[in-house]
Amino acid sequence: MRIAHIGIAVKDAEAALMLYQKILGLEPSSIETVESQRVKTVHIPIGDSSIELLESTSPDGVVAKFIEKRGEGIHHIALEVDDIRDTLEKMKTAGFQLIDETPRPGAGNKLIAFIHPRSTNGVLIELCQPTKQTH
Amino acid sequence: MRIAHIGIAVKDAEAALMLYQKILGLEPSSIETVESQRVKTVHIPIGDSSIELLESTSPDGVVAKFIEKRGEGIHHIALEVDDIRDTLEKMKTAGFQLIDETPRPGAGNKLIAFIHPRSTNGVLIELCQPTKQTH
Repeated sequence: MRIAHIGIAVKDAEAALMLYQKILGLEPSSIETVESQRVKTVHIPIGDSSIELLESTSPDGVVAKFIEKRGEGIHHIALEVDDIRDTLEKMKTAGFQLIDETPRPGAGNKLIAFIHPRSTNGVLIELCQPTKQTH
Repeated sequence: MRIAHIGIAVKDAEAALMLYQKILGLEPSSIETVESQRVKTVHIPIGDSSIELLESTSPDGVVAKFIEKRGEGIHHIALEVDDIRDTLEKMKTAGFQLIDETPRPGAGNKLIAFIHPRSTNGVLIELCQPTKQTH
């Protein structure tokens, strides 16, 4: 297991990148726009994890709404697990509140599912599991 | 560089541990009370990083006040750097708002310094640098 990434909601991803790139000397590995989520993501590897800057591409996107309500800041953490279906099943049995009852395809060939922060001490958790690549 | 830990402010660390221990199968490496900070910390290694559950030992501790104002949730992220003094100097020059102008001793034989979230997109960042051990 590892922390796959920490997602940070920002108003301007290019501006926020300054800290990580100029000061800390980290390089972004990808800048991607996910139209379905109305979000631009800047992925910055660090150790076996990464920082993911999230900028809304629309004033009514989920990230824009988060910032409107709470200000810029950490939006979610993604935990990589071996068997996402098994983990979801265990969590459901234990009474955790699942946002996604079954995993769905996410960016970077992963299966993902979100858990409601109400049941996880205020932390929006994304579970993710890399899917096997076909070559 | 790596993400040293993600600090999560919780009301009851033992209860919060359930998710990480029972569901995700992670084991805490230490449970420590830092009297000067009025906080109990439960340290849970995950990959090359860790989750740190923070429970206040007093109603007027910094973690208790955080929860009172914002609810439970992610309190800070700690980034391990090679040269904390150099990083602080670069940040100061670039206009970042330092909480600690010079590094101070933290838990686990580290030098630490906090950066104000006002200048880092709402994220309270702790810089840390392991100090050399004397045997």
